[in-house]
Amino acid sequence: MAKTILECDTVSLDEENSALVIVDQTQLPGRIKQLCLTEIEEIWEAIYLLKVRGAPAIGVTAAIGVYLAVKNIEAVNMAVFYKRFQKAKAYLATSRPTAVNLFWALDRMEGVVVKHMDCEINTVKELLRQEAVNIRNEDIEVCRRIGENALELVKPGYGLLTHCNAGRLAAVKYGTATAPMYLGHEKGYKFRIYVDETRPLLQGARLTAFELQEAGMDVTLICDNMSGTIMQKDMVDAVFVGCDRVAANGDTANKIGTSVVAAVAKHYGVPFYVCAPTSTIDMSLAAGSEIPIEERSPEEITEMWYEQRMAPKGVKVYNPCFDVTSHELITGIVTEYGIMRAPYEESLKKLKNI
Amino acid sequence: MAKTILECDTVSLDEENSALVIVDQTQLPGRIKQLCLTEIEEIWEAIYLLKVRGAPAIGVTAAIGVYLAVKNIEAVNMAVFYKRFQKAKAYLATSRPTAVNLFWALDRMEGVVVKHMDCEINTVKELLRQEAVNIRNEDIEVCRRIGENALELVKPGYGLLTHCNAGRLAAVKYGTATAPMYLGHEKGYKFRIYVDETRPLLQGARLTAFELQEAGMDVTLICDNMSGTIMQKDMVDAVFVGCDRVAANGDTANKIGTSVVAAVAKHYGVPFYVCAPTSTIDMSLAAGSEIPIEERSPEEITEMWYEQRMAPKGVKVYNPCFDVTSHELITGIVTEYGIMRAPYEESLKKLKNI
Repeated sequence: MAKTILECDTVSLDEENSALVIVDQTQLPGRIKQLCLTEIEEIWEAIYLLKVRGAPAIGVTAAIGVYLAVKNIEAVNMAVFYKRFQKAKAYLATSRPTAVNLFWALDRMEGVVVKHMDCEINTVKELLRQEAVNIRNEDIEVCRRIGENALELVKPGYGLLTHCNAGRLAAVKYGTATAPMYLGHEKGYKFRIYVDETRPLLQGARLTAFELQEAGMDVTLICDNMSGTIMQKDMVDAVFVGCDRVAANGDTANKIGTSVVAAVAKHYGVPFYVCAPTSTIDMSLAAGSEIPIEERSPEEITEMWYEQRMAPKGVKVYNPCFDVTSHELITGIVTEYGIMRAPYEESLKKLKNI
Repeated sequence: MAKTILECDTVSLDEENSALVIVDQTQLPGRIKQLCLTEIEEIWEAIYLLKVRGAPAIGVTAAIGVYLAVKNIEAVNMAVFYKRFQKAKAYLATSRPTAVNLFWALDRMEGVVVKHMDCEINTVKELLRQEAVNIRNEDIEVCRRIGENALELVKPGYGLLTHCNAGRLAAVKYGTATAPMYLGHEKGYKFRIYVDETRPLLQGARLTAFELQEAGMDVTLICDNMSGTIMQKDMVDAVFVGCDRVAANGDTANKIGTSVVAAVAKHYGVPFYVCAPTSTIDMSLAAGSEIPIEERSPEEITEMWYEQRMAPKGVKVYNPCFDVTSHELITGIVTEYGIMRAPYEESLKKLKNI
């Protein structure tokens, strides 16, 4: 509890390889509480209830989670072990429908099993542990490289706007959209960072404003409906957001409201960048309209208020958790391999063939 | 307390001509509480604390308020009475800087005094009472005519989006942006109405969703950052918003977030209409950049949450209460005299010369 958020890993496997350790993000910014989860149901629930969230962090969580789910399985042979693995994988895959990293990480873990069907079960378990750790370490490296690439797009003193939390709390370190902020801050770039509070669950206010302020940056919190004003007043030089899934044409699913920021940025001529690990790019989907969008409960909008209900009883609510930003509104997609530009069909295809 | 909100007048003078009667809008939707205010300080505070809000309602409140402030003045002559009137007027004018109706209504009341400097003080007091009542009655008529004019822009079954509350709770009856909704609903038009919750103070969720639902309309509440999604999905056929002040070139100040909805509507090709009594059109300002924008306290954004603070301590907050929507984003300005179209310099000038 004495720890600062910068000292806590967002997601890790404990030293005994027996538990997933996460920071409970639903308690932030009031309380820094680490959770040690050992059961697959707990891990599923942690993802579902947003105790851990953000595409990269969900991928790492799922990898460690599926490892923990099968590490104690006593199976008579690999075929039986594989069946049990598949069951655990399918279960974890139901926790969040939109984040492709979840499926990507689980598929990568399954690849380890499939590739070693003729090995000892204990050997495969150890290989799964290594793969989960690798996915985690690679995430740190990928975010760092996204940050370095994005730094080319900014200058010291820039006003930067971000939406939701694509920060270190959404990954393991650096974050995606925040990676250039962390790396620039280390270089003394003195950005002015604007953070959308991000209704309904306020990940911007609770998480992004919190982690960037802890890191010593100049952070200003705004409501989601104020982006027009700060762009009109030339307070914003670039927008950086994360993403949950990118389609082959560059259409991007991210937290609800992202497409609004993008349309406003287009109107005011502010460049709009999506920071995307290549693992979030899903070439199996031609366009964003094919991305499944998770809808969440009305109570997230109507009932998280002090003292009194802030909406009339029985009112209908529409609560999509994500939206799709058309590729036309995206100035560039920043990946660990460089900045992709339109036409995205070509640049993303080339990237995925690396 | 047994009353429904449709049975309560938003703003009125009581039968004894001794008190301003308003519905305390900070208590809605949980509690319908009517306040009887007699002191000018109470009336100033009711405006400042948003117990009564919305440009037309503020105008009516100020008119009744300044009448109540001077009706018991014992002055030796009209010159002294006029000085006391001016003092009360200047005081009430400080309650909200952006809403031009406040100044418009106070100026109209002052005009009564100036025009009758040679009359008996008691006669002038009675004329002031009549003027305040006239302003109130005219507001009802103006809103009804705005609604009739706006009905030309819609068809039965339309999806309509509105932001903040420019409803009957912002006026005396009908509202401005909601006037076509009420009149269309009476005709059985079966609109699908989408209401932005409108952070930070949630006038959309608390007031607009409430009053339209009470009136039996099909209302869906969304967060401010979801307008992009519902327009992308062709769920919205037109946007109607109110306004606090319109400059001579058509630039419009309205609740923060209005300019965001306008930019998004432009991107998706959805018509965006401002409903404006001519009293909100301020020809003394050439452009929206000259409109003073009220900024409010950071706590409105960071501290109105259940159980725990939802933003880190000490975080900077930018909380402008209004924004300016460029005339380029406005499809039409609906007034009681008809629908004004671009170029607004010409159409508004012609209108104001009626």
